[in-house]
Amino acid sequence: MISPTPDQMASVTFNAEGLVPVIAQDVANGDVLMMAWMNAESLALTFAEGRMVYWSRSRRELWRKGDTSGDRQFVREAYFDCDGDTLLFKVEQEGKGACHTGERTCFFRSFGDS
Amino acid sequence: MISPTPDQMASVTFNAEGLVPVIAQDVANGDVLMMAWMNAESLALTFAEGRMVYWSRSRRELWRKGDTSGDRQFVREAYFDCDGDTLLFKVEQEGKGACHTGERTCFFRSFGDS
Repeated sequence: MISPTPDQMASVTFNAEGLVPVIAQDVANGDVLMMAWMNAESLALTFAEGRMVYWSRSRRELWRKGDTSGDRQFVREAYFDCDGDTLLFKVEQEGKGACHTGERTCFFRSFGDS
Repeated sequence: MISPTPDQMASVTFNAEGLVPVIAQDVANGDVLMMAWMNAESLALTFAEGRMVYWSRSRRELWRKGDTSGDRQFVREAYFDCDGDTLLFKVEQEGKGACHTGERTCFFRSFGDS
């Protein structure tokens, strides 16, 4: 379990809506799985529970990733960027994947010739 | 050079400020290098020039990554997510890295014991 220091937590800059963008990356193969948002509460819960807890902007509620789908994301490493305004979590992705479409990653569509 | 189709470009959803978050990932080793923003113009320029052109929110101007530092990012693969509201570019990172601090990735600080 990762225990962030107060200094590290103070380095996180939330936007005007009180949110910070969070990138989830598959610790197993480096694939970027998804990008979503956290508020201060969901960030604290993510560290406390060791699994990704986002803030759903559409539903305006805490979003414990995988509670519905069963496909939880367990925190293995966590980083904040130079400005503190974006977070990167390396996660162990449970089940079939991160995307509600059933794909493993949300970035399953590419630009260019398909 | 990647030539996005009109359908693919129409899948991109910009936020209320006309911006979309963009993740740059090192195509060589899978490291997430940075997250920044593009507007429609910078996205079109990115594809037209084959290198990352962001929109600087602080300076409110086009930001041709590497014009000052020399550390350009050349586009190798590009993806949009299931909602079309986040983009992922796999890039060839030139020079010493993506971060203005001199680090290769902006995510060089981790949460937890250091």
